[in-house]
Amino acid sequence: MTPPTDPDPEEGAAPQGAAPQGAGPSPRRRPGGRTARIRRQVLDAVLAELGDQGYDGLTTDNVAARAGVHRTTVYRRWGDVGGLLADVLDAAGDDDWQPLDTGSLEGDLTALNEEIHSALTARPPIVAALIAASFRSEQAAAAQQRLWDDRYARCEVVVSRAVERGELPPHSDARRLLVAATAPLYHQLVLLRTAPDPQLPGHAARTIALAAAAGAFVEPPPTGDG
Amino acid sequence: MTPPTDPDPEEGAAPQGAAPQGAGPSPRRRPGGRTARIRRQVLDAVLAELGDQGYDGLTTDNVAARAGVHRTTVYRRWGDVGGLLADVLDAAGDDDWQPLDTGSLEGDLTALNEEIHSALTARPPIVAALIAASFRSEQAAAAQQRLWDDRYARCEVVVSRAVERGELPPHSDARRLLVAATAPLYHQLVLLRTAPDPQLPGHAARTIALAAAAGAFVEPPPTGDG
Repeated sequence: MTPPTDPDPEEGAAPQGAAPQGAGPSPRRRPGGRTARIRRQVLDAVLAELGDQGYDGLTTDNVAARAGVHRTTVYRRWGDVGGLLADVLDAAGDDDWQPLDTGSLEGDLTALNEEIHSALTARPPIVAALIAASFRSEQAAAAQQRLWDDRYARCEVVVSRAVERGELPPHSDARRLLVAATAPLYHQLVLLRTAPDPQLPGHAARTIALAAAAGAFVEPPPTGDG
Repeated sequence: MTPPTDPDPEEGAAPQGAAPQGAGPSPRRRPGGRTARIRRQVLDAVLAELGDQGYDGLTTDNVAARAGVHRTTVYRRWGDVGGLLADVLDAAGDDDWQPLDTGSLEGDLTALNEEIHSALTARPPIVAALIAASFRSEQAAAAQQRLWDDRYARCEVVVSRAVERGELPPHSDARRLLVAATAPLYHQLVLLRTAPDPQLPGHAARTIALAAAAGAFVEPPPTGDG
């Protein structure tokens, strides 16, 4: 039994696992401050409610009650459910996550995809619920995009390391490679809703490593003068 | 100005465009029958309402009024909004769509991806609204999965033609190849919500054609006896 009140499916991980997600310019936490403590309580309550009830059961009143803070505090600071979800997503990016360095492009992409696979198939399905919620709230959708954008940016080192090792030609389009490597995970698990597939992370990684070695992500070199 | 009451973003195309979607065992239409005519009126009204209002404005009453049928007809036959959306998706697969035969794997995948790109970026965003709705209704989600499953099954001929031409080794996993080729379109346009990108269909197709030529989708041959 996974405790439904445990907001975090991955120990110590961001609620999006370490999947490419993105914080963008999220406010830095000041551990110990009262404001920061209330924020943590409220965001933990959002995750717990989302794990218990999904989006449909999520209300600012329930979140306030669970967090043990006054409802007006929640209204004043976050506005509504969309504001709460957006702050959960922004907070998720406020960490020091980095992709693993396994020594090869295929290894790094496999490790990344395994983290995404775990996050997308975790119980309770917090990450899946946050993605679903982004179809209901523009504010949550924008925060989800910031989180992904930041996560993909952090993953670009995977490509630059491969270029340094001589595995990839220079002028490889890192973002396009990373999106291609991770897209089958999201497509299968979020949209096609296929069952978890332990082979999927490695397959998708190997596919893109092979395509990359064959020059699929080479960009035309920047033209001349300067 | 796209007329908001035109339910179909692509002329004559299924509301999912020709993207891999899936009808599964959808009831065959009997053109001319009164039952079939009412179904068509009601499903057209669902698409028109979805284009106008999105999921949040969609009600069985509005659909009945727009279709010019009695509300009890809609309740009795479709139950609720989830039932209406599921039938729209089932009807979308009840066509004779086949992937283009361009003479090469990369060409076929590019043509397929261009259809998906058009469907996902069409205005009004009917396909995007149907995908979003599948996060709100289990019944719609199941129908969406049937539609995709059927569309991907129809696309498997793209892979078998490539095997026949000698472009791909036998025992290539067609479904995995097709999902990999199309996943970046869905990931970028539906989840990452990036802007339409005319390069994306061809890029994603070429990436997977290169990976396939390098053996990324070869399965172990079936073992012996028989």
